[in-house]
Amino acid sequence: MTPVHVIQSVAEARPALRKLWRSGATVGSIHTLGALHAAHGELIKRSSAENDHTIVTVYPNKIQLFEGCVYQYNLDEDIDLAQRCGATIVIASDDAEMYPPEYATYIDQGERAHRLNSSIFDYASRGQVTGAIRWISLCRPTASYFGMKDIEQSLLVARAVEDLLIDCDIRHVPCVRDTQTAVPVSSRLRFLPPERLQEVGAVYHALELGRLAILAGQTKSATILAEIRERLEPQLSTFKIAYLTLVDADDFGPIDEARLPFILHCAITDGTLNHFDGLCIRTDEELQNSPAVIWI
Amino acid sequence: MTPVHVIQSVAEARPALRKLWRSGATVGSIHTLGALHAAHGELIKRSSAENDHTIVTVYPNKIQLFEGCVYQYNLDEDIDLAQRCGATIVIASDDAEMYPPEYATYIDQGERAHRLNSSIFDYASRGQVTGAIRWISLCRPTASYFGMKDIEQSLLVARAVEDLLIDCDIRHVPCVRDTQTAVPVSSRLRFLPPERLQEVGAVYHALELGRLAILAGQTKSATILAEIRERLEPQLSTFKIAYLTLVDADDFGPIDEARLPFILHCAITDGTLNHFDGLCIRTDEELQNSPAVIWI
Repeated sequence: MTPVHVIQSVAEARPALRKLWRSGATVGSIHTLGALHAAHGELIKRSSAENDHTIVTVYPNKIQLFEGCVYQYNLDEDIDLAQRCGATIVIASDDAEMYPPEYATYIDQGERAHRLNSSIFDYASRGQVTGAIRWISLCRPTASYFGMKDIEQSLLVARAVEDLLIDCDIRHVPCVRDTQTAVPVSSRLRFLPPERLQEVGAVYHALELGRLAILAGQTKSATILAEIRERLEPQLSTFKIAYLTLVDADDFGPIDEARLPFILHCAITDGTLNHFDGLCIRTDEELQNSPAVIWI
Repeated sequence: MTPVHVIQSVAEARPALRKLWRSGATVGSIHTLGALHAAHGELIKRSSAENDHTIVTVYPNKIQLFEGCVYQYNLDEDIDLAQRCGATIVIASDDAEMYPPEYATYIDQGERAHRLNSSIFDYASRGQVTGAIRWISLCRPTASYFGMKDIEQSLLVARAVEDLLIDCDIRHVPCVRDTQTAVPVSSRLRFLPPERLQEVGAVYHALELGRLAILAGQTKSATILAEIRERLEPQLSTFKIAYLTLVDADDFGPIDEARLPFILHCAITDGTLNHFDGLCIRTDEELQNSPAVIWI
């Protein structure tokens, strides 16, 4: 195993990246907030299989976190996981370098960026998309990998990359779920006790029920969502539903009738912790078999 | 003279650009709306002197033009001028390719992008900056050249490139002015009769009076602006002042006291045609001698 090249700032990364681009090698990238886990590992492994080099960036992007939130991560552990999964370069940075006082530029995608997740935490997707576009602009990867756990972010980043004419292939990697509970592997859920993980997993099963109703011929969104809610609500005790919606997969606007491509999306909250889950169904095949999942 | 490589779409440009990047050559770029004139020529010549390749893009970016505006240009003439000034590649596109129905992404720079020019034509700078960032993302130039005739655009694009971590040097080229009238060389002014050009040129001379007042020790913005206005107003007949302001050169917010770096900026209008002129003064040297001008 070649030792991973660790670069501790954007400034230091630039000359190394220029050398990499000139080499003509293919480059995959994974952009993280740190606290890497098995789901990041899947993204890194896939990039490593598909590219000559894999860059992992580690920076808890402050504009997509609640103000005052301290994101817990250990860079050495992250470097270790990245390396074991096939990363060749890790780039880290900090708030002082990423957001100097004169910083002023954001990616605006209109209404669509204020629906789903961002209807709960305003500007979440603006922060996520701006953060991702900045790292992609810096690294100029051939391909960049985004997990379908965060459907909103994955699709908005793909839209931004296409719109901004950036020469990068955005590859969506299936959501990674725990085989026992169906809970998505996530840094924010890792401390929950088993009975609360049960509640979180119930969201996925309830959304699956919605998919099956649509597959069986039900088209009315109101009916589909009522069925999901009826199934889910009795299974929640420490969480409640913040929203449950059926939306167009392009602009995330609610639709009255289910038609491809669509997203069934649900947020639950305990007042502090918000959890989002969804099924992004773009093809007949996904409607038939459900979107792909990496079960671990 | 090597014949310029003309590429008629973004789709066609991608493989040619990848080949160019792999060659390790330095690349300069100039992004235009078409209708190239001597001021574009200066940008192209400078890029040509400083880089192995020079890309000129030609596309009348619809999101920075008034709705329904038909921008008159002749691609063959533009190619010819670009080639004579040293361009090696011309890339053209059209609305259908640049703004398909699903297009959704804009560069947002907050309040600063709604001051100066954009206070008259809302979203002008959003359109200009988004347009420039798209072409820079596509072309990945080593350096991109922007004229200081459009102070607002030049500085906002530089801010966006820095904030988005794009590895490109934004080089500001002095405003190109007619030696007789001091009028900036501009596609929108080229049809004005001599007596109206006199009015346009008066703006520059009046702003210069403001600079001299500051150099002589005057610091109160209100006093400086009143002096400029007193000089300028009697010289306008078909135009009137839309605004006259002294602003911070970073966020374009009005300042009460002149201090470096600042911009003296003025808009005149006849109700249809808006003309903007300004002095961007960042250093003692610029305060002493006025910002550089290319007189032709």
